[in-house]
Amino acid sequence: MRQSELFTKTTKELPKDETSFNAQVLIRAGFIDKVSAGVYSFLPLGHRVHEKIKNIVREEMNAIGGQEIFMPALTPKEAWETTDRWENFNVLFKLTGADKKEYALGATHEEIITPLVKKHVFSYKDLPTFVYQIQTKFRNELRAKAGLLRGREFSMKDLYSFHTSEEDLNEYYKLAQKAYFKIFERCGLLDLTYLTLASGGAFSKYSHEFQTLAKNGEDLIHICENCNIAINKEIIEEQKVCPTCDNKKLVEEKAIEVGNIFKLGNKFSKDFGFRYTDEDGEKKDVVMGCYGIGPSRIMGTIVEIHNDKNGIIWPDEIAPFKVHLIVLDNRQQTTDNKEKADALYEKLQEAGVEVLYDDREIGAGEKFADADLIGCPIRVLVSAKTLKKDSVEVKRRDSDEEELVGIRDVVNKIFSI
Amino acid sequence: MRQSELFTKTTKELPKDETSFNAQVLIRAGFIDKVSAGVYSFLPLGHRVHEKIKNIVREEMNAIGGQEIFMPALTPKEAWETTDRWENFNVLFKLTGADKKEYALGATHEEIITPLVKKHVFSYKDLPTFVYQIQTKFRNELRAKAGLLRGREFSMKDLYSFHTSEEDLNEYYKLAQKAYFKIFERCGLLDLTYLTLASGGAFSKYSHEFQTLAKNGEDLIHICENCNIAINKEIIEEQKVCPTCDNKKLVEEKAIEVGNIFKLGNKFSKDFGFRYTDEDGEKKDVVMGCYGIGPSRIMGTIVEIHNDKNGIIWPDEIAPFKVHLIVLDNRQQTTDNKEKADALYEKLQEAGVEVLYDDREIGAGEKFADADLIGCPIRVLVSAKTLKKDSVEVKRRDSDEEELVGIRDVVNKIFSI
Repeated sequence: MRQSELFTKTTKELPKDETSFNAQVLIRAGFIDKVSAGVYSFLPLGHRVHEKIKNIVREEMNAIGGQEIFMPALTPKEAWETTDRWENFNVLFKLTGADKKEYALGATHEEIITPLVKKHVFSYKDLPTFVYQIQTKFRNELRAKAGLLRGREFSMKDLYSFHTSEEDLNEYYKLAQKAYFKIFERCGLLDLTYLTLASGGAFSKYSHEFQTLAKNGEDLIHICENCNIAINKEIIEEQKVCPTCDNKKLVEEKAIEVGNIFKLGNKFSKDFGFRYTDEDGEKKDVVMGCYGIGPSRIMGTIVEIHNDKNGIIWPDEIAPFKVHLIVLDNRQQTTDNKEKADALYEKLQEAGVEVLYDDREIGAGEKFADADLIGCPIRVLVSAKTLKKDSVEVKRRDSDEEELVGIRDVVNKIFSI
Repeated sequence: MRQSELFTKTTKELPKDETSFNAQVLIRAGFIDKVSAGVYSFLPLGHRVHEKIKNIVREEMNAIGGQEIFMPALTPKEAWETTDRWENFNVLFKLTGADKKEYALGATHEEIITPLVKKHVFSYKDLPTFVYQIQTKFRNELRAKAGLLRGREFSMKDLYSFHTSEEDLNEYYKLAQKAYFKIFERCGLLDLTYLTLASGGAFSKYSHEFQTLAKNGEDLIHICENCNIAINKEIIEEQKVCPTCDNKKLVEEKAIEVGNIFKLGNKFSKDFGFRYTDEDGEKKDVVMGCYGIGPSRIMGTIVEIHNDKNGIIWPDEIAPFKVHLIVLDNRQQTTDNKEKADALYEKLQEAGVEVLYDDREIGAGEKFADADLIGCPIRVLVSAKTLKKDSVEVKRRDSDEEELVGIRDVVNKIFSI
């Protein structure tokens, strides 16, 4: 995309009323816009990043057999009453329609998915089955100050699994854990993310959170370096030691909860009377699990972790564009910088490289500052100086080393670094 | 996808409380599920169709310079008060947060996009610019009985254009009309869709709707066969003749409004003080247009039009899968039907063909009925009878002719019909 056509502009001004680092830098770089506390618009650059994260999540959920659907945000009061959560789920946004019908805005979708899958699944032959959506969720948070880390409106992938037995659920639960770590790897969060024990409800001793270490994280976790897992605050207050190895030397760290998975057992299948017929013709409760991950929160987390004083440093697979192509001195009619850069822009795109092309008629300093702020992985510079050597200058955002590369070799270079 | 793994099942039962044809057949075929009146979930088959329609819309909006963003559903009361629509836009769902903040659920997004673009666009050099989203919209309809044609929650593409002058808006407005007809062509609705004059507000004499003829349509339009345009009910009640050629012999038809475009002029730029600096340094109001189209409503409209007594007949580009591969007698261990069909399934997928593979161990009648109900464009049948001739039977959903095709030639055949 030509930056001269991109409608957003970067700004040096810190946004008013925005205390979180991720929102400050994402707003300054033109990725998001704040509509109200905890409610953001995703602008062209931000929308691209958000969609890339969603697609990674989608691919990994498809890889473990997930079938994608899309459930509504308007969820009827009756469904929440069936599970006794209309009054007890304290972050529900509630509203009333013209026909007096009452709704909650979906904060999670057990109340919708359970009766839905019940209409299609009857026998052990139909199980297990795995259904997910990537959709907007709403939580009526009293305070929302952490940018994309805790929104009132945010994106969520929620997968629900349905099984004939606890053993079958346990097996899939492990598979889902692995899929989650693949997602964090592709999002550049693997090294800092811990599987974290959390309270499990009536059916299971523990549920699991995925917590990413970050200095601005809202959660406190306790890492057991023996087991390479963490324990959340709730659990640690009960028992003070690692539940797996009794290690007492736990390391307290701030972290962001980027995902959580939970064995629901038969809680929701009992509430909705969702039973299956087993091989002997007997009716049994379906056993369920749920698996959440927040793409918009992951986006905020990446920004909290991958940055320097000049801006964002996007991991390659998440970046809005792989290459930020910059042409200098393109105002002057006396040089062919613009023609050379235009040709390179076309060539890179033909090779399938996503390019943000800074063809604006502004100074070099502003272009460099914007490239650092926006944070694409590779900067390619075309200037009178580089063209004298029939070359361009290539620099990775995460390195200080610049390299002159012959203009004919640029495409291969891009694919190799 | 293997149909044995698809969690949804078809049903012969007419859904309760569902009077619209499109919802009845989409529910029976497992494309959607009704959550409450006017509120549906999109199941795997339906989600695929819905996403295909969205992608067509996306491609055509990108082709006319649209930049994709994503705005929230929670929109603050203050924005609607600025435009005097908090009380006057009568289908707003309203709700209040834990901090007493009041919101409307976005029914349209002029109130969000105008202050947003104002933050980035300052000069005539930044104009024109075109910004769109594909997002969920909410309308607090008193009655919602038309399935996907009039939902309380539905998908919408809304593009907003920003210009220095009325002339520039007019030029883009024509370009958008052309893009819309490309969308309707790709969705199989071109022949039945009329550009329709509607009332235009303060800035323009007319706005334009796109109305698709359909016997279950909720709107009445009046077609002028001289001009090949239509006039909506509101306009015709005022003047009884074609406003373009004064033709009095207009043909009344039922239709579904599948899109609408509107010259907003400076209504919203005035409300939000969105001005630009022209070439002489003078401040002027930005001139705006808006362009709506509903992917979920288009999905319902396609079903209303492309069907027969046995089910849906999806246009090729919209179908959940291009090919419905059916294997018969795959229960018997004595034939190699299953192995042959499995191999063909792999081969078709390797060739990039989207295949729904009915590998279930059920009777032929049920498989044929499901294929007709679900409505993929091409049915490929593998049976003991066809395999005797090293062949499969190929039939288009929209034709009664079956053709024996050599099993080696199937891929080429699929690409040629």
